[in-house]
Amino acid sequence: MISPLRVEKNMKNIKITISYDGTRYKGWQVLKNEENTIQGKLQKVLESLTGEPAEVIGSGRTDAGVHALAQTANFHISEKSLKKGYADNRLLSPDAAGVLSYLNQYLPEDIAVTSAEEVEERFHSRYSAVSKTYRYRIHVSTIPNVFERKYLYTYTDFPLDTDQMEKAAGFLCGTHDFASFCGNKHMKKSTVRTIEKINIHKENKGQEIVIDYTGDGFLQNMVRILTGTLIEVGSGRRTPDSMEELLAARDRRKAGYTAPAQGLSLLEVFY
Amino acid sequence: MISPLRVEKNMKNIKITISYDGTRYKGWQVLKNEENTIQGKLQKVLESLTGEPAEVIGSGRTDAGVHALAQTANFHISEKSLKKGYADNRLLSPDAAGVLSYLNQYLPEDIAVTSAEEVEERFHSRYSAVSKTYRYRIHVSTIPNVFERKYLYTYTDFPLDTDQMEKAAGFLCGTHDFASFCGNKHMKKSTVRTIEKINIHKENKGQEIVIDYTGDGFLQNMVRILTGTLIEVGSGRRTPDSMEELLAARDRRKAGYTAPAQGLSLLEVFY
Repeated sequence: MISPLRVEKNMKNIKITISYDGTRYKGWQVLKNEENTIQGKLQKVLESLTGEPAEVIGSGRTDAGVHALAQTANFHISEKSLKKGYADNRLLSPDAAGVLSYLNQYLPEDIAVTSAEEVEERFHSRYSAVSKTYRYRIHVSTIPNVFERKYLYTYTDFPLDTDQMEKAAGFLCGTHDFASFCGNKHMKKSTVRTIEKINIHKENKGQEIVIDYTGDGFLQNMVRILTGTLIEVGSGRRTPDSMEELLAARDRRKAGYTAPAQGLSLLEVFY
Repeated sequence: MISPLRVEKNMKNIKITISYDGTRYKGWQVLKNEENTIQGKLQKVLESLTGEPAEVIGSGRTDAGVHALAQTANFHISEKSLKKGYADNRLLSPDAAGVLSYLNQYLPEDIAVTSAEEVEERFHSRYSAVSKTYRYRIHVSTIPNVFERKYLYTYTDFPLDTDQMEKAAGFLCGTHDFASFCGNKHMKKSTVRTIEKINIHKENKGQEIVIDYTGDGFLQNMVRILTGTLIEVGSGRRTPDSMEELLAARDRRKAGYTAPAQGLSLLEVFY
């Protein structure tokens, strides 16, 4: 997708890294009549700077309630807007650093831009991305973690056998058709993806199971369905080797439940 | 203070450790016509269990908006209540573990009891406490920390010279009259306290300055006034050796500002 803005001359391409607490948002992507999205908030602040429509291209969508430690995005801004913003004392400098500071000044407290840099014209945060890591945090204790409660899925029916979960994860790694793990029933494009690795470890004195998924791309709800399925393995309701059959079925109904959004964070996007 | 409840026979003395996100509370202590306190929430849940008035004795008060990783408290509960709660299937076991589970089931999500144990009759969470550690977290970066924003004081007028702050802290350690650092203008009791140590270190890649205060007791707002004063040292508005004069003045007006509640947490209480 080439945005009309991109072909103009004297436009700078700015790459940003964004962290957000997704709790009160409808996800990354701007929806019709729905302003309460991360992309929407970023575009609104940029528009207040330039007075022109802005398009912030994310590396991918995150669902409603999903967080990001380091989502990446890029947008184009004219040299004219940068110079004018600086002349008006709205930007501390007529460059990426000035825009970063401006964005953080006007964004809500649950969204922050953690870095900004000018990148080459052909950089596209989605198409240029090579792989991503998502983290899913499962709280497995009767003692609540009050400080991180919004970033955890509290699973009360523990224990979960992480050895079994790791065995199942081994079957899921590699290049497969993940149609069974796709939340979009009307997906017309390829559902083949490659999961490079799934790392499962315990944190907070064993009170938390953390699952990191790294892959070249993830289908809608895929990480959450993978997690729900791994939880069913950990609780003994599925066997690790049943993953082979599940992948072959290409049927969403055969996989586990969709784990809640709040335990999920986009950790990093690799280029 | 001997509560009327304490002298009854067949009462068990239960010590609990509590963590809370103090953001939406009016502090630890129950106030007149003010239910929204940590102590109030705990007492309400205990009363729902026993049907009798409960008194939860904290190791000390925390101000409105202050958090605790490990506040301690104790309360008395009759063997009869424990046995009845167990017989009614309201408690999983007629003991401290059963009460812990019950409390966590009914407390709001920003308060958690992290441990509970039966202790000897003479244990009193306030009088038996030997020392306490408070932690103050100062965020010194233009990049917001969205996930921990409620537990940080964002100080934008940085840099702060932590070497100077450490020197000043050296003057504050030891046994002194801390009247200059007491927020209660009508304090009639002794304002002499001993600060065992003040540890200042950086975290999160230098984006955060953490100050840990350990002492035998702290006056009202004392940690926050100490922090405001140390920040004024770090920013060059005071010298480290001016601390001696400040302590000698015994005058609240001579000390620094009261740093905001949200950066403060009660980290640990030692017995």
